[in-house]
Amino acid sequence: MPIRTLVWGENVHEQKNKVVAENYPDGMHNQIASLLRQDANLEVKTTTLQEPEHGCTEEALANTDVLLWWGHAAHDKVDDAVVKRVMEHVWQGMGLIVLHSGHHSKVFKGLMGSPANLHWREAGERERLWVVNPGHPIAKGLPAYFELEYEEMYGEPFTVPEPLETVFVSWFQGGEVFRSGLTYRRGAGNIFYFRPGHETYPTYHDANVGQVLRNAVNWAHQGDRQAHLMKAPNTPVAEAIEKIEERGAKLSAADHAGEVKS
Amino acid sequence: MPIRTLVWGENVHEQKNKVVAENYPDGMHNQIASLLRQDANLEVKTTTLQEPEHGCTEEALANTDVLLWWGHAAHDKVDDAVVKRVMEHVWQGMGLIVLHSGHHSKVFKGLMGSPANLHWREAGERERLWVVNPGHPIAKGLPAYFELEYEEMYGEPFTVPEPLETVFVSWFQGGEVFRSGLTYRRGAGNIFYFRPGHETYPTYHDANVGQVLRNAVNWAHQGDRQAHLMKAPNTPVAEAIEKIEERGAKLSAADHAGEVKS
Amino acid sequence: MPIRTLVWGENVHEQKNKVVAENYPDGMHNQIASLLRQDANLEVKTTTLQEPEHGCTEEALANTDVLLWWGHAAHDKVDDAVVKRVMEHVWQGMGLIVLHSGHHSKVFKGLMGSPANLHWREAGERERLWVVNPGHPIAKGLPAYFELEYEEMYGEPFTVPEPLETVFVSWFQGGEVFRSGLTYRRGAGNIFYFRPGHETYPTYHDANVGQVLRNAVNWAHQGDRQAHLMKAPNTPVAEAIEKIEERGAKLSAADHAGEVKS
Amino acid sequence: MPIRTLVWGENVHEQKNKVVAENYPDGMHNQIASLLRQDANLEVKTTTLQEPEHGCTEEALANTDVLLWWGHAAHDKVDDAVVKRVMEHVWQGMGLIVLHSGHHSKVFKGLMGSPANLHWREAGERERLWVVNPGHPIAKGLPAYFELEYEEMYGEPFTVPEPLETVFVSWFQGGEVFRSGLTYRRGAGNIFYFRPGHETYPTYHDANVGQVLRNAVNWAHQGDRQAHLMKAPNTPVAEAIEKIEERGAKLSAADHAGEVKS
Repeated sequence: MPIRTLVWGENVHEQKNKVVAENYPDGMHNQIASLLRQDANLEVKTTTLQEPEHGCTEEALANTDVLLWWGHAAHDKVDDAVVKRVMEHVWQGMGLIVLHSGHHSKVFKGLMGSPANLHWREAGERERLWVVNPGHPIAKGLPAYFELEYEEMYGEPFTVPEPLETVFVSWFQGGEVFRSGLTYRRGAGNIFYFRPGHETYPTYHDANVGQVLRNAVNWAHQGDRQAHLMKAPNTPVAEAIEKIEERGAKLSAADHAGEVKS
Repeated sequence: MPIRTLVWGENVHEQKNKVVAENYPDGMHNQIASLLRQDANLEVKTTTLQEPEHGCTEEALANTDVLLWWGHAAHDKVDDAVVKRVMEHVWQGMGLIVLHSGHHSKVFKGLMGSPANLHWREAGERERLWVVNPGHPIAKGLPAYFELEYEEMYGEPFTVPEPLETVFVSWFQGGEVFRSGLTYRRGAGNIFYFRPGHETYPTYHDANVGQVLRNAVNWAHQGDRQAHLMKAPNTPVAEAIEKIEERGAKLSAADHAGEVKS
Repeated sequence: MPIRTLVWGENVHEQKNKVVAENYPDGMHNQIASLLRQDANLEVKTTTLQEPEHGCTEEALANTDVLLWWGHAAHDKVDDAVVKRVMEHVWQGMGLIVLHSGHHSKVFKGLMGSPANLHWREAGERERLWVVNPGHPIAKGLPAYFELEYEEMYGEPFTVPEPLETVFVSWFQGGEVFRSGLTYRRGAGNIFYFRPGHETYPTYHDANVGQVLRNAVNWAHQGDRQAHLMKAPNTPVAEAIEKIEERGAKLSAADHAGEVKS
Repeated sequence: MPIRTLVWGENVHEQKNKVVAENYPDGMHNQIASLLRQDANLEVKTTTLQEPEHGCTEEALANTDVLLWWGHAAHDKVDDAVVKRVMEHVWQGMGLIVLHSGHHSKVFKGLMGSPANLHWREAGERERLWVVNPGHPIAKGLPAYFELEYEEMYGEPFTVPEPLETVFVSWFQGGEVFRSGLTYRRGAGNIFYFRPGHETYPTYHDANVGQVLRNAVNWAHQGDRQAHLMKAPNTPVAEAIEKIEERGAKLSAADHAGEVKS
């Protein structure tokens, strides 16, 4: 069964910056989509910030197995209701792949519970990504390392939670390192952060980057949504699995009324 | 040097429910504080929801090494600005211990990036907490397991991220299990979630619970705040550690203007 | 492409104990294999302790994608050379699923670097396995919990390393809990420990257990062996990726001669 | 109470190689000890491979809270009985800090359950260690990064298990990266691996390296030994915490006789 994949592009610098427009004449989202389509099992759509509800309507997300997110200049233009909706779909099992400057998106910071800060430099320097976890599905088919001759530098400390696993670590020409490929799960949803992707450089024309993205979509996909994870239900005493007697004092119904569990 | 500890109590059911008031005539926060004061190295203050800024002013937090948080009925009464302030202090290094129904507090859900749901039953049943990580500092001095004869049940799945380490797992009389002691780090701040503590039962009069809380404060304390973690600074090319030449295209200053990095 | 799966059975108590023989007239390994064969994509073979090299010849392992290991009474009868061979295949990418009393096998203890102790009781008591990680591939298609009416109890602390992820936690009738489904990676090889499976009870006739095992084989499979992970090669200065000059003092060739790196 | 710290040095190249002898006229172990003694709370002893039982007698280890291990040329000269003894003390709570080429020691490989391979180059190149986990106790008091002008290169993949936490990541002049500071727990014992320390360079004269080692000893220390973790005891049915009736078939005493649980 095909994996329904949605690429979300901010699509701002493509419209304003000549170099970015030349790199990605159809927009970054469409170039990312073309990398993904090299895997015949991925059914790939794209959408952008400029669409109604940024293209992330309830219906669109309900029909998405894995969402990719690239944003940079307009994080604060993303509506909070859409951010909440994306997070809720992740918690129920939608996969999410966050790209490059998406580390500062509301969606990623919200799911990490962290500021996701770092230090950075835009100088077209060489980045070399080392596979530190060669058995991980996201590293499948890659060489021991690969290089991006022109990239923006991101330096540690990257203030994100300790990941489930670290897949890539980057070396930068100017002397920094960065944990470039990190996996997480939030609720039932798999999340992968992948560092490269500065818009003024041709990163999404790189074959190894394409391989990583295809691997990541396959890894992140995990099947049906689990809506029950969004609830905190009461289990009545009479339905306890092992028979128990109710004992001790209870909160009154009125006291429970103030609680947020539902 | 003493560890400056602040106990935050919601202080709602103590004022409305006769049983809770009898259990905790001085409020739950003060009883928790009295458990902590058995460690002479802890300098313990308390505050409540009802105080201005819920007692979590910038000054109060700046003078806190470890914050304990108990809330249940009034999570949505906690001001978002205070929630943000608490999270920012955690990211910079303040320790945080979240108790029982605090799993649904805005602070905890925000730091976990997860709904932190579970299922529950208020029947005064027996809970038995097993130490699954006997080398962890939070388990120090505890027996192999300890029991709370009357507790609310919380059942899995608990939708929180995989922890750094699982310290306790609970057995419940009615047939459920729960990961009852979980550690996390967010930014530079240590976080410990500890499950027991339903307000209609005498949990905070239990000696083992006191031992866990004192251990947890000592574990969570990590020294000074690291304000630099709140920033994502640019490193100018001229200041690169290893000498590099600027290459390739750059975003214009105008393009950078829209970014949130600061 | 089918997943080449090998079930290793100790096959001792089936030959000596009437109840075990009645439970598993073809041996436990063959019953486990029949559960796996319900997944048409698994190509399943079996072997036992009694075969030459315990059926784990270099050729047999080289043709195995995922190995399942059930042992109990005869851990010390397993030849150290075979143990080493199995571990080396795991490090290069063979998946491994360790069942029940296999926690004390040389293979598992060797891969964990831990004694893998626990406490236990053989009383035919009820075990209830809760899914604590509902988004994990190994939990796919399972209910919120499932029960085994007759099982041996294993109690915490289970002295194994903190896992990558905890998938199941068990409740026992006699009052204990146990982390029953744990994932690890060693080198490029995925490892899953699954607790149930005492030989005097009909555990491997249970449908949910079958589902877990099939899920686990699919999860553990990761493709080709990575032989290069068994080496620690020197990278000559002249072949450094970034041009460097050799500086400082070096060990002589004679000094290097004593090292084990190769 | 002082932390009883034992520095184990292989003490081979100091005796054979002129440069090493000049770097460390009293042996590497004594120079490491002198760094540790800058913390008045550490009570530091040293021993070497050449001592009876390599200085790791039962009595010596029983009186050690944290052991540091530096070896390189003579890993295979370390007696297997001593290796087993060290591992058993770690499992019961002794802290262990493994230095540089100790990655290939029997003790470390045994505790990791992994080959702990890497690739390497001895060219006196620059290493820069970045703190990626600024809230970790082992990073306390360190700058954002520190440099060692002359070091041996170790490159990824480092075939060790995913750590509890990654504290340092190294940048190398020749283009490689390495996860240089990794934490683990095995049984009740804390383990820290720290990469730098090649014997032909003056690494153990560096102030930041000294700070890391002192921090690591303080972090790894966790108090008393837990001998019970070395056993897998039977819990008789009559002593079950919750009253249960024995049911179903059991293994005979004779069948149990073959098991290794004790």
